[in-house]
Amino acid sequence: MGKNVTIVGAGLVGSLVSIYLAKKGYKIDVYERRADMRKISMSAGRSINLALSDRGWKGLEGVGIADEIKKIAIPMYGRFIHHKDGTTAYQPYGKDNQAIYSVSRAEINMKLMDLAEQQPNIKFHFDKRCASVDRKTMEASFEDNNTKKVETVTSDLLFGADGAFAASRLNMQLNNDRFEYNQHYIDCGYKELIIPPGKNGEFLMEKNALHIWPRGSFMMIALPNPDGNFTCTLFFPFEGEKSFNTIKTKEQVIKFFNEEFPDAVALMPTLADDYLNNPVASLVTVKCFPWTFDNKIGLIGDAAHAIVPFYGQGMNCGFEDCVVLNDLITKHNDDWDKIFPEYQSLRKPDGDAIADLAIANFIEMRDKTADPKFLLQKKIEAKFSEKHPEKWIPLYSMVTYSPHIRYSKALSEGKKQQGIMDKIMAMPNIEANWDSKEVEDAILKQL
Amino acid sequence: MGKNVTIVGAGLVGSLVSIYLAKKGYKIDVYERRADMRKISMSAGRSINLALSDRGWKGLEGVGIADEIKKIAIPMYGRFIHHKDGTTAYQPYGKDNQAIYSVSRAEINMKLMDLAEQQPNIKFHFDKRCASVDRKTMEASFEDNNTKKVETVTSDLLFGADGAFAASRLNMQLNNDRFEYNQHYIDCGYKELIIPPGKNGEFLMEKNALHIWPRGSFMMIALPNPDGNFTCTLFFPFEGEKSFNTIKTKEQVIKFFNEEFPDAVALMPTLADDYLNNPVASLVTVKCFPWTFDNKIGLIGDAAHAIVPFYGQGMNCGFEDCVVLNDLITKHNDDWDKIFPEYQSLRKPDGDAIADLAIANFIEMRDKTADPKFLLQKKIEAKFSEKHPEKWIPLYSMVTYSPHIRYSKALSEGKKQQGIMDKIMAMPNIEANWDSKEVEDAILKQL
Repeated sequence: MGKNVTIVGAGLVGSLVSIYLAKKGYKIDVYERRADMRKISMSAGRSINLALSDRGWKGLEGVGIADEIKKIAIPMYGRFIHHKDGTTAYQPYGKDNQAIYSVSRAEINMKLMDLAEQQPNIKFHFDKRCASVDRKTMEASFEDNNTKKVETVTSDLLFGADGAFAASRLNMQLNNDRFEYNQHYIDCGYKELIIPPGKNGEFLMEKNALHIWPRGSFMMIALPNPDGNFTCTLFFPFEGEKSFNTIKTKEQVIKFFNEEFPDAVALMPTLADDYLNNPVASLVTVKCFPWTFDNKIGLIGDAAHAIVPFYGQGMNCGFEDCVVLNDLITKHNDDWDKIFPEYQSLRKPDGDAIADLAIANFIEMRDKTADPKFLLQKKIEAKFSEKHPEKWIPLYSMVTYSPHIRYSKALSEGKKQQGIMDKIMAMPNIEANWDSKEVEDAILKQL
Repeated sequence: MGKNVTIVGAGLVGSLVSIYLAKKGYKIDVYERRADMRKISMSAGRSINLALSDRGWKGLEGVGIADEIKKIAIPMYGRFIHHKDGTTAYQPYGKDNQAIYSVSRAEINMKLMDLAEQQPNIKFHFDKRCASVDRKTMEASFEDNNTKKVETVTSDLLFGADGAFAASRLNMQLNNDRFEYNQHYIDCGYKELIIPPGKNGEFLMEKNALHIWPRGSFMMIALPNPDGNFTCTLFFPFEGEKSFNTIKTKEQVIKFFNEEFPDAVALMPTLADDYLNNPVASLVTVKCFPWTFDNKIGLIGDAAHAIVPFYGQGMNCGFEDCVVLNDLITKHNDDWDKIFPEYQSLRKPDGDAIADLAIANFIEMRDKTADPKFLLQKKIEAKFSEKHPEKWIPLYSMVTYSPHIRYSKALSEGKKQQGIMDKIMAMPNIEANWDSKEVEDAILKQL
């Protein structure tokens, strides 16, 4: 107790874990590479809104700010599919009022920082780049972006919460023998675009949905923002016939969007300029091990497990890290020789699982959401699950609405379910018989 | 032509590639982090001898020093297996005089440096740690170990030949978007031990063999040195019942070696002291991509593809990189916009293949070389190969004696062969019938 904790990174997870630790009585210093985002205007064109779901809510509830965030969050009850021919389809994400929530990354982050600063035992330090972390001495050095002066701090515990390209983790990669490390990029990058509000500030598409334009090898999605606009994200191959490499000029952009996303083009007055001006970002998965060192240094959030965004679980998983850690602090009475090993052994398989699920969901979103057979399968699963909720929770629901089910369990259950559904979908005349006792019994028999 | 080339690393591959490039007329500066190994006494206990095979010889022949190295190389014609009960067995590595050669890493490296310095257009710089490589400006900076002064050099081309933990590659990992990177450690580490010569300087075991004590989850090997001693290497799990973690005291060492390697213990007078004093080293596989950047920077040798030592191909593969590069320089008339892309597309699959083969050979060496069924399979393959050399080259021979067969081809052919041999070994009474027309025909039929 009363231990000094250094947290590298004041992002979503760094801010949240600082609050959890402060409430346990630790003295916290949070060092952030960037300037204080509450004092500067945000730069556009980079990952602005996120989908908050139950694991994330649980993390916010634990520090009492779920209600406040809910005020600025927009529930999305399902996928709104936009086909190439202009027709649309709607797939609910779950039953009843189950939803994921579109929230602004900046808003949540600023709220978390504000809350953290209300704690007397948390201090933020901005514009401080992590230059080194020394395991032996527990010294971390930070260079000030403006003065270039290097400050060295010593603490009892240190958390690396500095994201996918964590400087804290790099120090472990370089100075820890047998550090397992893997960074993998998918062949697609992304670019943000915008659908502005209508004349009277109204939403120009269905507000309470996540919009998807699935096109096989690429897709666009759109999430609602409180001010009436939608943040659109084009996920697009870097190379190939239709790719960032071939769609480059204003003319190419207009032609391509008119062909592929005709209904969206009508709502995107600044499309060509946005496309030409906004950056292309890449999508990385990072897996590493160990996550803890000498029971004094721990990685958390993206620094431990950066994942692609297609399951909307990056932030949610990071918040769940905080919840698990908090529970272990309670369970082990602040004995970090017990907390850290259990944190690592619990969370590593779950981080790996959600990383793999996120990659798989990319395929599902860009490709299968346009496939009638896939939609039928989801319908059968939903129906069966409704009738036998104790026997079948659809994979998406396990991941998104079931914080009591570990990601690793969801992954293994999901594989089992897919094996069953492969057989069901191969049944003759399934399109006609999908809602029959025969199908229900066939599933029951396999369970 | 006449271009300036910076090479990071004066190890085996850095030294060799510098000679190849110098002979093509390039002006070379080689920067090495360590001191000049020719001027200091070597520290013992770390990876001293290597197994040179045909791909490596080809690399040395290309610069005309194969004959000189042959003088200090000891041919090993097969595996000499030491069983736990004291019995031994011998497995030839190939036919006739096919052998791999035990050579001292330091000897080869020093010879290569000497040869390189004879070229007027190569200059070595020692004690220079690579601090940064800037892709845009082609500036590389090196910090002098003694003066701590940083020197910045600009060149037309730069090669990262600085090994498994290459600083040059790290700069690409940090400053190149979408750099694929994977470092993986196996669960075993290694420790070097020694069997000294007899009273009259004689070898106390068979000189012309690679000695193996296969024990399932661990093994010891021994390679001959020209002065009559053997360098022994214990490959041993870090954790577990029999591991570096459990065998720690003098008493434990003596007991363990007496149980597991009784015939070796008799020849190891300094065993306990060596075990207690020599370091444990870890074994990493590194895979990355790309290997070339802007057609100006290239990775080569371990910097591009660090592998575990169990196929004895680390150096050989690095030397083959140099040969392939040299051929491409000739083929493309020094047009690096053509050389680098082809170098990368040719060598990356081969680097991946030998990495996987090396991991697989660990299992084979420590486990299967003690298995009568495995030995029988090798005997059948050798027999068949002898009779139908155009139809079947054993995998080990493809990798070791067949530089004209790419590693990637050897890997895929080897998988095909294993599929065939799985069926052959399942034939009833194969132990008795192995040398029959029936078996020969069964193989022929599957080809």
